[in-house]
Amino acid sequence: MKDSPNDLYRKLLEGDRRAAARLITMVENADPQARQALEMLHRHSGGGHIVGMTGSPGSGKSTLTCRLARHYRDEDRTVGIICVDPSSPFTGGALLGDRVRMQELSGDPGVFIRSMGSRGALGGLSVATNDVINILDAFGKDVIIVETVGAGQVEIEVVKYAHTCIVVTMPGGGDEIQAIKAGILEIGDIFVVNKSDRDGAPRAVADLEMMLETKPGIDEEAWKPPVISTVALSGEGVGELADAIAAHRAFLVQSGLMEEKTVQRMKAELLEILKVRVSRAAENALDEDEVGAGLIGRMSAREIDPHSAADEIVEYLFGAPDSNPGGHQAAQVWKADNSQGRDNE
Amino acid sequence: MKDSPNDLYRKLLEGDRRAAARLITMVENADPQARQALEMLHRHSGGGHIVGMTGSPGSGKSTLTCRLARHYRDEDRTVGIICVDPSSPFTGGALLGDRVRMQELSGDPGVFIRSMGSRGALGGLSVATNDVINILDAFGKDVIIVETVGAGQVEIEVVKYAHTCIVVTMPGGGDEIQAIKAGILEIGDIFVVNKSDRDGAPRAVADLEMMLETKPGIDEEAWKPPVISTVALSGEGVGELADAIAAHRAFLVQSGLMEEKTVQRMKAELLEILKVRVSRAAENALDEDEVGAGLIGRMSAREIDPHSAADEIVEYLFGAPDSNPGGHQAAQVWKADNSQGRDNE
Repeated sequence: MKDSPNDLYRKLLEGDRRAAARLITMVENADPQARQALEMLHRHSGGGHIVGMTGSPGSGKSTLTCRLARHYRDEDRTVGIICVDPSSPFTGGALLGDRVRMQELSGDPGVFIRSMGSRGALGGLSVATNDVINILDAFGKDVIIVETVGAGQVEIEVVKYAHTCIVVTMPGGGDEIQAIKAGILEIGDIFVVNKSDRDGAPRAVADLEMMLETKPGIDEEAWKPPVISTVALSGEGVGELADAIAAHRAFLVQSGLMEEKTVQRMKAELLEILKVRVSRAAENALDEDEVGAGLIGRMSAREIDPHSAADEIVEYLFGAPDSNPGGHQAAQVWKADNSQGRDNE
Repeated sequence: MKDSPNDLYRKLLEGDRRAAARLITMVENADPQARQALEMLHRHSGGGHIVGMTGSPGSGKSTLTCRLARHYRDEDRTVGIICVDPSSPFTGGALLGDRVRMQELSGDPGVFIRSMGSRGALGGLSVATNDVINILDAFGKDVIIVETVGAGQVEIEVVKYAHTCIVVTMPGGGDEIQAIKAGILEIGDIFVVNKSDRDGAPRAVADLEMMLETKPGIDEEAWKPPVISTVALSGEGVGELADAIAAHRAFLVQSGLMEEKTVQRMKAELLEILKVRVSRAAENALDEDEVGAGLIGRMSAREIDPHSAADEIVEYLFGAPDSNPGGHQAAQVWKADNSQGRDNE
């Protein structure tokens, strides 16, 4: 029998793991009832510290995540782990194939592990991942680690709004550093050179530190991202990493940035939800009715350019600006490109 | 003096390079007058073959792009090159620092080169890049190569809808292959193992071929992506790559998929434009007026969850479903989550 949103809500707050797993599956399937449970759970979230873990493939993020989780368990803190892999169709609570180490953790009731693949993309993978973070937060996990498999845009979007974002790299050539530069230098609160028993580790640390020092816009009071050397396989440096996470959290609380980060995260979630909804509405219109088919035909015949087609879809979906008395002026912003563009014609 | 959209349109069709450069700058600055010129130019586009070039950093995409461009110039075909680098604030028609080879090309009037960085992100980098592709297409370039610096989501979004998408890798360890697996195996029409004079090249080719054979959903009539070995520095294999691109184009035309690809590209462009507009409208509402500030406050106090906040923003921007007689049923799709979710409360 299917639980009602109310049942799920109640069971989740009682610590029922299966209820948490079921609710997450509902989120992945974009089940409307999940929405209700999320709404009710929302006021119970906010206690967990959200840690994002990203970096180049092969840098050992997964092993490091496990080590960090064990470290927290030794301190008797509970841990949620979310593995985000946009390239994988595989999901549903099971573990990614090569993550044997995580299986050791999965027997511990103080740890909750979930993988999210492209199947969780029914309502957008970023949206679903944020929902799962909020569920594990309300579920009472002290630390929620969101580990991404790659460093693509979806992954970055997901970890960017974590309380503490860890960027993992390893010694070995400028390519790794080059990959890191591509957009993720800005989002890292802590940098890790993993596999630091390999040749070139001190060089990699020095390179990173230099790049971080030349980072623009850093003022005196800002957080200075540390670079930490670890060997995840042996556990070396993991305690230091946990200390850095704690220090960053303390900094966020003291500086008042914690509150700001939380609001930024909710805003980002809200915008992702809107993007998914508007895309879905537009795709429905394009694929499923006569007006949409007509528009596709005119696009195909090059009679209409994509910007003008966007104008038509907006007008079709939401009505002409003046026929919508309930709409707000801000809505005109996204209808405005058209009228502006025609002023001088 | 600033050219009118009409002047730009006329000069562009006459082959005026400076007019093309000016229009591109206007696109990057989200100048509304660019919209008008784009609208007029649209019916002149569609003749160019759009080639996307993506792959891991350091694989030599840039050198390969230059070689390919020279090859086309030797055949007396004109070439447009767009370098997309989301991590770079640097743009505006100049070349990326290390692209010395491209400078050799830039003196040739049959080649037009443009770099797009995050500054081109005012109206969204994907949207701006698509606009620039369309401008160079209308400008009469026979081949338009869109080269991305990394393999992030924006880059993939940009090359995914090219007519022919080339994925570049190089010999050397499973990490490269692993990076390729992450979402870009599906989008490659042609795979290149560059730097194939290095150790491990045959192995890299064999690995790729094996991965491509196990790709699901390939039927008899489908295009079978070839794996080509090149040494971009010496030019080895570049002719073979050009042949593969020509073969893929012939396949698209013969199979009727060319038309379908074109429409898919326009649809994707349209959806990107919509996403940028809805985000901008929502951000404006959140940042600039009282209702938005109130919503942020309630989010901050955890009184409202992001999904419910999205409902409120939609209603605020576009009016309640029943107060919008001009709006279409499809618009209700993205307002519907709320009413659905409350049915069982």
